[in-house]
Amino acid sequence: MSNDDYRFPAPPREKTELEEGALFSPRFDANGLVTAVVTDAEDNTLLMVAHMNAEALSKTLSTGIAHYWSRSRQSLWKKGETSGNRQHVIEMRTDCDQDVVHLKVRVEGHAATCHTGRRSCFYRIVLTDDGEARLEHDGSAPLFEIDEVYGRKG
Amino acid sequence: MSNDDYRFPAPPREKTELEEGALFSPRFDANGLVTAVVTDAEDNTLLMVAHMNAEALSKTLSTGIAHYWSRSRQSLWKKGETSGNRQHVIEMRTDCDQDVVHLKVRVEGHAATCHTGRRSCFYRIVLTDDGEARLEHDGSAPLFEIDEVYGRKG
Repeated sequence: MSNDDYRFPAPPREKTELEEGALFSPRFDANGLVTAVVTDAEDNTLLMVAHMNAEALSKTLSTGIAHYWSRSRQSLWKKGETSGNRQHVIEMRTDCDQDVVHLKVRVEGHAATCHTGRRSCFYRIVLTDDGEARLEHDGSAPLFEIDEVYGRKG
Repeated sequence: MSNDDYRFPAPPREKTELEEGALFSPRFDANGLVTAVVTDAEDNTLLMVAHMNAEALSKTLSTGIAHYWSRSRQSLWKKGETSGNRQHVIEMRTDCDQDVVHLKVRVEGHAATCHTGRRSCFYRIVLTDDGEARLEHDGSAPLFEIDEVYGRKG
């Protein structure tokens, strides 16, 4: 363990201590994860939602660059390593019961966060007509050629 | 089932269809939940993160008022029913892989979302000093007397 590693204490039993105290004791779930909500530090736009284990959280704090736990790949994920769209963490917060962290970030590269190449993962609006819900694109387009960056499949 | 109920189809197998299509097919997890990220429709401030099952999602769409699934109480939760701080949904979005919904809301009553009485649940900043992470309050104070609204304990 290097000097750059952060350790996170177990959450206090006292609810008031958890909610009002100065101890950062993230409440990792049964899979060892907290939810991470990522917004643009400039205008608060919601960019993505991901997950962090203790290692990803520690590396994010020690480097200032967002790291996540990829649930699909089951591995540490330094966001932007392939695309160059790294996320500089301007501020990190946690919520009342400490099972979510909020990252306010500045995105490098193409300023794209979504793997589809778009700025945000939330590019579709839920609309309702006659008891049916459907999705409508908000018109946001990919900011880079995803095939070129990630490689063409097949 | 009333006319107000929405049904949600199973997610398509095709990734492109899931990510680019017009079908709203939320990917509920093993507990039947999607994550809901709630922001202020006016200035995008992150207010809270909660969860929705199909019933909560349906009731949110049919009434325009945010409903969640309370994991601690294991019951449907019409946010603001006790405090009056109901959330009017101005817009709902979903993310690329449809396991998160984003609600842009206008909060009634005291404009407080957190059960501590504060506007947002994210009132503490994570700071690092000498390899230790700690929390600092951002100074936001309760907007109503929580003891009076929720009742005093004990």
